[in-house]
Amino acid sequence: MIIILKPQATEQDANEILDKISSLGLKPLYMPGIERTVLGALGDERILRQLHLDSYPMVDEIKPILSPYKLVSRELQAHDSIVPIGGINVGGGKFTVIAGPCSVESEAQLFGVSEMIKTQGVPLLRGGAFKPRTSPYSFQGLGLEGLKLLKAAKDKYQLPVVSEIIDPADAELMYDYIDCYQIGARNMQNYRLLEAVGKQDKAVLLKRGMSATLEELLLAAEYIINAGNPNVILCERGIRTFETATRNTLDLNAVAYLKEKSHLPVFVDPSHGTGVRSLINPLSRAAVAVGADGIIVEAHLNPKEALSDGHQALNADDFSQLMADIKPFVAAAGKYL
Amino acid sequence: MIIILKPQATEQDANEILDKISSLGLKPLYMPGIERTVLGALGDERILRQLHLDSYPMVDEIKPILSPYKLVSRELQAHDSIVPIGGINVGGGKFTVIAGPCSVESEAQLFGVSEMIKTQGVPLLRGGAFKPRTSPYSFQGLGLEGLKLLKAAKDKYQLPVVSEIIDPADAELMYDYIDCYQIGARNMQNYRLLEAVGKQDKAVLLKRGMSATLEELLLAAEYIINAGNPNVILCERGIRTFETATRNTLDLNAVAYLKEKSHLPVFVDPSHGTGVRSLINPLSRAAVAVGADGIIVEAHLNPKEALSDGHQALNADDFSQLMADIKPFVAAAGKYL
Amino acid sequence: MIIILKPQATEQDANEILDKISSLGLKPLYMPGIERTVLGALGDERILRQLHLDSYPMVDEIKPILSPYKLVSRELQAHDSIVPIGGINVGGGKFTVIAGPCSVESEAQLFGVSEMIKTQGVPLLRGGAFKPRTSPYSFQGLGLEGLKLLKAAKDKYQLPVVSEIIDPADAELMYDYIDCYQIGARNMQNYRLLEAVGKQDKAVLLKRGMSATLEELLLAAEYIINAGNPNVILCERGIRTFETATRNTLDLNAVAYLKEKSHLPVFVDPSHGTGVRSLINPLSRAAVAVGADGIIVEAHLNPKEALSDGHQALNADDFSQLMADIKPFVAAAGKYL
Amino acid sequence: MIIILKPQATEQDANEILDKISSLGLKPLYMPGIERTVLGALGDERILRQLHLDSYPMVDEIKPILSPYKLVSRELQAHDSIVPIGGINVGGGKFTVIAGPCSVESEAQLFGVSEMIKTQGVPLLRGGAFKPRTSPYSFQGLGLEGLKLLKAAKDKYQLPVVSEIIDPADAELMYDYIDCYQIGARNMQNYRLLEAVGKQDKAVLLKRGMSATLEELLLAAEYIINAGNPNVILCERGIRTFETATRNTLDLNAVAYLKEKSHLPVFVDPSHGTGVRSLINPLSRAAVAVGADGIIVEAHLNPKEALSDGHQALNADDFSQLMADIKPFVAAAGKYL
Repeated sequence: MIIILKPQATEQDANEILDKISSLGLKPLYMPGIERTVLGALGDERILRQLHLDSYPMVDEIKPILSPYKLVSRELQAHDSIVPIGGINVGGGKFTVIAGPCSVESEAQLFGVSEMIKTQGVPLLRGGAFKPRTSPYSFQGLGLEGLKLLKAAKDKYQLPVVSEIIDPADAELMYDYIDCYQIGARNMQNYRLLEAVGKQDKAVLLKRGMSATLEELLLAAEYIINAGNPNVILCERGIRTFETATRNTLDLNAVAYLKEKSHLPVFVDPSHGTGVRSLINPLSRAAVAVGADGIIVEAHLNPKEALSDGHQALNADDFSQLMADIKPFVAAAGKYL
Repeated sequence: MIIILKPQATEQDANEILDKISSLGLKPLYMPGIERTVLGALGDERILRQLHLDSYPMVDEIKPILSPYKLVSRELQAHDSIVPIGGINVGGGKFTVIAGPCSVESEAQLFGVSEMIKTQGVPLLRGGAFKPRTSPYSFQGLGLEGLKLLKAAKDKYQLPVVSEIIDPADAELMYDYIDCYQIGARNMQNYRLLEAVGKQDKAVLLKRGMSATLEELLLAAEYIINAGNPNVILCERGIRTFETATRNTLDLNAVAYLKEKSHLPVFVDPSHGTGVRSLINPLSRAAVAVGADGIIVEAHLNPKEALSDGHQALNADDFSQLMADIKPFVAAAGKYL
Repeated sequence: MIIILKPQATEQDANEILDKISSLGLKPLYMPGIERTVLGALGDERILRQLHLDSYPMVDEIKPILSPYKLVSRELQAHDSIVPIGGINVGGGKFTVIAGPCSVESEAQLFGVSEMIKTQGVPLLRGGAFKPRTSPYSFQGLGLEGLKLLKAAKDKYQLPVVSEIIDPADAELMYDYIDCYQIGARNMQNYRLLEAVGKQDKAVLLKRGMSATLEELLLAAEYIINAGNPNVILCERGIRTFETATRNTLDLNAVAYLKEKSHLPVFVDPSHGTGVRSLINPLSRAAVAVGADGIIVEAHLNPKEALSDGHQALNADDFSQLMADIKPFVAAAGKYL
Repeated sequence: MIIILKPQATEQDANEILDKISSLGLKPLYMPGIERTVLGALGDERILRQLHLDSYPMVDEIKPILSPYKLVSRELQAHDSIVPIGGINVGGGKFTVIAGPCSVESEAQLFGVSEMIKTQGVPLLRGGAFKPRTSPYSFQGLGLEGLKLLKAAKDKYQLPVVSEIIDPADAELMYDYIDCYQIGARNMQNYRLLEAVGKQDKAVLLKRGMSATLEELLLAAEYIINAGNPNVILCERGIRTFETATRNTLDLNAVAYLKEKSHLPVFVDPSHGTGVRSLINPLSRAAVAVGADGIIVEAHLNPKEALSDGHQALNADDFSQLMADIKPFVAAAGKYL
């Protein structure tokens, strides 16, 4: 940790801080300069943070050296993590497609989509039973009934299930019905929710918040692992920027960066990442090429009748095209579907 | 609602949608143009949203006409709402300062700050017992013990209390200790939490999410009121932008806009809104001038020892200066402290 | 164009505007609603904009229907444009790599890089003679001497040259030395500069401004074509967002969107788009997969000695690796290098 | 300057860099840590930047200590600068209003507005003769004829004139007609333009680019002063964020920050900063309260007929109200109009 003092700071101000650093058993450094004095503190930065050095009036700026996360870092584990979802391994040499409707609406709808994606070779089903919606007047999901339908679809089509959790109190209820908890973008920093899924032993697909930095995403994953559950999959789903031509700005820099810094699998959600049906295919191809471990895509046999997000759902023909389009790129990446 | 069709849309495509609109008892409009056909649908847009017209392949764009919120709107209630917090009325001609530490740390700390702000004429105390922290390794608050200290401070100094809630399961527990629930920026779209406080009858201070639009903020307030609790205070606390010189970008446009569109009181949090101690005073003055109903400020007798956010907390001298600095501006605004 | 009136607008207010619309020979539409009155105006929206209807006090909002650009649009020209740079055709089935140093520094430096990229099969050389730098104390480029070196390198290695223009007054001077003008991100809305290159007949590589919307980028291209020069190449080079882990956020949604809306070739600059050397390869692969027509990359034989942007320049080994890495993806995209 | 090495860096890597630092006559520092080695370099950071240490493969990150600007800084000049515009002093204890139309359209229009603002006590006239417009099909200004009208208005009403420059080649032409050059947001990093006005001796009103950081704004001012012209006024005019309820997000944090770091006068443009007529008054009051030295506002006797930006122009009644509204806040700030 580097501590830059204000121009008017005296040697006494510096000594007060250096003593604080020593008192924690860390190594202090004194670097008087021409215009500014700079101090250093070497050691575990998480201990240093407890000093709250930024509260000292003579401290102008604090520059951390080490990243604040540890368990998710490649410095701790150099090789890629493989995360199992109901018997299907995610990560490694395989490129995994997760597909299904935004919301579970009925047995007919869910079974129809399940059959369609199964035919296309998709190994995992997604579907929302609890829907976080911006407006209180929008469809909020079928709840428990939706979970039961997901379980039925899973059993019938042999498709392990990913579904969103929005309340810590639901973690145990959902456990019997699903194979992977999804934490949505709006809840990425809902720490009670992170802890709740951290206490379970099923996989967690953690979506990046719409204005979360990559450091914050990694720290959110750290919460889950720190609570006891190492089976975390990161998911880039587009960030909020000034651009309004697309619903969000899909940040593929993030995928390459996360793969470099963390051993966790990284997915891409091109449906929310673009919000435009015709852009889903090109961005899925790009997700393969940039090194993602998989994509999670919205599909619906009749998008016109979808109760949520129909404008970005792929129908059977679209979906078949998507699978055909990504195939050569998966091969170019040296992976398999 | 205005529906713009793609250039290749036929009259049959248009008729299919017009029929849909009519089928809900709403008024359809057909506007064939030279380059594009435009359709209209007049009536309650919340019904129209159920049509999911954006899922039709020939629909290029949907442009809503009416705002999606209603209960929070000045169109429903033209006059300003007054929201009571433990007997103190917020809104109207009064400019209200809420102050206190970021986190409750100990009796000595909390009572010290309470006495200081009471002396300065502040009517309401803030303090966090449950702290949402970006890192799992940071101080997470005293929990129930913190709530008890807040209650004790309230009783001793006659200062009704505002404190953050982070889990729906805590709503009833907190009810006995506090006078106003605070929903933090990270939880603005935690809908279960919004519903939980919407079922209580105590005031709710709702902070804007760090990348929430004003429409989303108003819809979050709509959730709370729709669940039964009309006592909502909106709070601008800075948004996330590209600028890194300040911790957040305090959006005072938002305050003027919210006062125009909504009857709810609007507060400003200059501590998080700037993240820089020396900028709190000028931005507090600006908050008064732009028409805010109050500010919520972090104060600590010894910021150096604060367990969280010490760098932006005001000490006793700073706080006294703040109160003196805003006074002439409160008068210029035709309000009183 | 859709015109939404304020709730308190009278029929007389509506008529005043409808008369205005008619007076221009356009078709007015009157749509009285329950809560709001909506007006329509059908015809060339560029004429309608001259009405400045947004200045009427009873007008709440204007929603344009047609895009404001025309010459760059696929609605005008459905097939892809091919843009020649010094005899090399850009666009169509070919994926084109443009490479070279950020700044021209010396003959030895420029010739060294030119030889290296030529060996790698790169057809076009980039290099800056005039450098726009954030600080007045940074290296500003060699100017005319740099142009002469570029011309010499071109002649020696048969590599047509792309170089940045920063002043309208330089357009003619540069004409004799270079084959393609580059407009940098900071100058995307420098309209005098756009007009200056619009009067020349050599290609223009137009970089997106760091906070420019895609509509603004297309309008900037429209300026150039409107001034007489149809040889425009669009270039996504990263936008400015809240994320600081990478220098910019490369927006590959933009590439897919631009290819859909415009017939112009679209390039990607992964060097500025990431600002991190190790991320250039994965994002270059993604650029191929998303449908870009080429990339423009910074290369330097000795990045440590580079006078600008050395941290993001590829050396000979890096560059050779890049070319090898993109090859299978170019084939997967059905293109050739 | 602090240089953080990668975990795998050896002592030899460190020594190579330390030698480089010494070779420039600066003081190197070696700080080996447990997980990382950190190096320091003390002295003029502008010299250090020439080392391009970020190009070294073993360098992970560079953290500058000193700000990169100097001439604009309060560290160089502690007291406020006063900038004269045609005999009117800007800055110090006076709050200055600059007003006038977005574009000069005709003598009648310009003289009408000039008389109106003169009556209201406004000391300076603004008006655009050269207009940078997003679309090539929008009104581009009257050019030289506009400048002549501005000069005529100035002479008739004793109102020194502020007008925008968009081409370095116009600097001398404009000199005879105007009293202050305005650099618009889109040209904040048009360095040739900054140098062109830097060679003149008339004041420059420098608007912040719509996604420029405050450091970049200060560096742009540094360009002008470095070229010889110290008469620079900074102007916050709203930044581009995700929020679309207002045209831009007016960043009043910026005003307080700039006043703290720089001795230059700081203005606010509430017309562009909000883009909404009804928000101009509250944000102007806030600009006074936050410590701005003045505002620049668009006014038009008949906004409905304005050829540009009519929706945000104030008419005579609006303007009179604005002046009345800010008056008590100017007094509260201890300033005079």
